[in-house]
Amino acid sequence: MEGEFKHLVLVKFKEGAAVGEILKGMENLVTEIEAVKSFEWGQEMEGPEMLTQGFTHAFLMTFENKEAHTAFTAHPKHVEFSATFSAAIEKIVLLDFPAIRAKPPPSA
Amino acid sequence: MEGEFKHLVLVKFKEGAAVGEILKGMENLVTEIEAVKSFEWGQEMEGPEMLTQGFTHAFLMTFENKEAHTAFTAHPKHVEFSATFSAAIEKIVLLDFPAIRAKPPPSA
Repeated sequence: MEGEFKHLVLVKFKEGAAVGEILKGMENLVTEIEAVKSFEWGQEMEGPEMLTQGFTHAFLMTFENKEAHTAFTAHPKHVEFSATFSAAIEKIVLLDFPAIRAKPPPSA
Repeated sequence: MEGEFKHLVLVKFKEGAAVGEILKGMENLVTEIEAVKSFEWGQEMEGPEMLTQGFTHAFLMTFENKEAHTAFTAHPKHVEFSATFSAAIEKIVLLDFPAIRAKPPPSA
């Protein structure tokens, strides 16, 4: 089953980065931009470096389709936030992909 | 809002790896193991290496809570599959984290 379009970002923040502020900024961003259907994030706390590769945060945005993702990417508020975000990170992995729902949640 | 527990895996497969078989195996695995609440995955097709770091596939499993994730990790079928999976990958990032739902889907 073809699902929505996902924007997945893994980062390691720079030492001393204002992580709390950035997280707040990201929450504001996705709330303000309607194209973002849902947003979840999390912080890895325990994994060994061998598996996490030093990445500490994962951000997952869901869009209804690829066009909504494109609209988000081009949104002035996203462009502005990206500059702040980029300055705060030591490394990043970014994957954009159409999501395949191999096992839909029980409620779906 | 505190959400479920996530198991996120990014990989780059080895050249010549039987990717189709592995994907099938993973779908079977998550279907068979009840602890997995939902499973989505996707393949990045277009992103620049600078952003994808060469990772091509993202796998995202959702669990009701951390205990369900622990049960999954310890499940004999997972242990067996992990051996096959590990042999097929060139690199991996694995993050396990409690998900924060900053913007729940409209239907929620």
